[in-house]
Amino acid sequence: MVKNIVITAGGTSERIDDVRVISNFSSGRLGLAVAKAFSESDTVDIGAIYYLCDKNTVVPENDKVKVIRVAGAQGLLNGLQDLFQQEKIDAVVHAMAVSDYTVKQVSTLEAVRNREENKPENILNQGKISSEMDDLVILLKKTPKVIGEIKKIQPDTILVGFKLLTDVSREHLIQIGYRLLQKNDCDFVLANDLTEITGDRHRGHLIAKDGSYQTYETKQEIASAIVNHVSKVFQDKEAES
Amino acid sequence: MVKNIVITAGGTSERIDDVRVISNFSSGRLGLAVAKAFSESDTVDIGAIYYLCDKNTVVPENDKVKVIRVAGAQGLLNGLQDLFQQEKIDAVVHAMAVSDYTVKQVSTLEAVRNREENKPENILNQGKISSEMDDLVILLKKTPKVIGEIKKIQPDTILVGFKLLTDVSREHLIQIGYRLLQKNDCDFVLANDLTEITGDRHRGHLIAKDGSYQTYETKQEIASAIVNHVSKVFQDKEAES
Repeated sequence: MVKNIVITAGGTSERIDDVRVISNFSSGRLGLAVAKAFSESDTVDIGAIYYLCDKNTVVPENDKVKVIRVAGAQGLLNGLQDLFQQEKIDAVVHAMAVSDYTVKQVSTLEAVRNREENKPENILNQGKISSEMDDLVILLKKTPKVIGEIKKIQPDTILVGFKLLTDVSREHLIQIGYRLLQKNDCDFVLANDLTEITGDRHRGHLIAKDGSYQTYETKQEIASAIVNHVSKVFQDKEAES
Repeated sequence: MVKNIVITAGGTSERIDDVRVISNFSSGRLGLAVAKAFSESDTVDIGAIYYLCDKNTVVPENDKVKVIRVAGAQGLLNGLQDLFQQEKIDAVVHAMAVSDYTVKQVSTLEAVRNREENKPENILNQGKISSEMDDLVILLKKTPKVIGEIKKIQPDTILVGFKLLTDVSREHLIQIGYRLLQKNDCDFVLANDLTEITGDRHRGHLIAKDGSYQTYETKQEIASAIVNHVSKVFQDKEAES
């Protein structure tokens, strides 16, 4: 049976003003590798690969890939909701490094200390923050947890989550990755550590629902493993039905 | 005589933590157009084009172009200082959208209000900000004004500055652009308005030392005008000497 896949990839940009954003270092290369692996798969018959990413992310050039540009965590959530309404999605590989925070307001240190940050003369009302202000502060608020919404919208989809930590023990990384899996009803979580991603090397641990995991050393290996594991779930589901 | 050109292009990224940055929407395409125009110029005999940009900026592919990656406003300033020590630079086209602000500290709203933001247990000490904090604030401070340093380091170089404003009158744009020219001893300033940059259209006003200006409608026109005007100054200088 033909399968529709969603891949979210690269970083997100949270808008500060007309010209500034908070973004992250994500290269989007892991998402590219996953798209390539799915499009070349012998075991999955691909209908479409929907590729959701920020406007600056590099995208795969492939006839099966339909690129959908989204802005920020909220934009990603809206994009996914729209897509789920239009299409049956069989698997979601949620590789995008979604910002945990978005911009609530830009203010000054003085205003924050005097609890005046909600005063009407918001310093952003000219579209671009003046370069003449001293002691600016950016107030942040949490973004919606996109990964937690996916199975709520489409319970049957296969969900692969991602967890990136920095310089932690493998035990801790697997533990936190597995917690993400359980909390969000993921089928798999790819857990990786920023200090183990350098150049061509990219160590990743693919954690399964039973808590077991396998370790890979490059983006290509990780991408192939994701496709193989998702493909296996497709086969098991079809055998069941 | 062979000329060495410096082009700064694209946006800058100011580091928040191991994975997050404050960056801007600059596409870097105007810098590319200027590099292309210089490399194809009949009137300027190019020695080298040094292209200073952030690590994510698209760069020209050209034998004459030497790419130097810099991080943040301070990184750009250091890169320029190093380069000026090694080479005689005949012109600097400073098109980079340098951030006016960099990150002083990441803190919490409570700590800022209680003036505790300098307490030793800085929340950034784990490399990456936890995604579990509420009410984060980013404290900003001004970056060094790179444009103001260029003529101080090399008074003979020809300097083209850039000024981007948002949704202002042409009169105001020219006035602010001219002020930038005078303050930083620029030979020219390209003044433009974000609302007049859409797709292929890019309106820019090239302001000269006498306050006069000419208006162009595309990046290619702007790039050619910059090269022609800089080339004219080269010729005048050579005729004088």
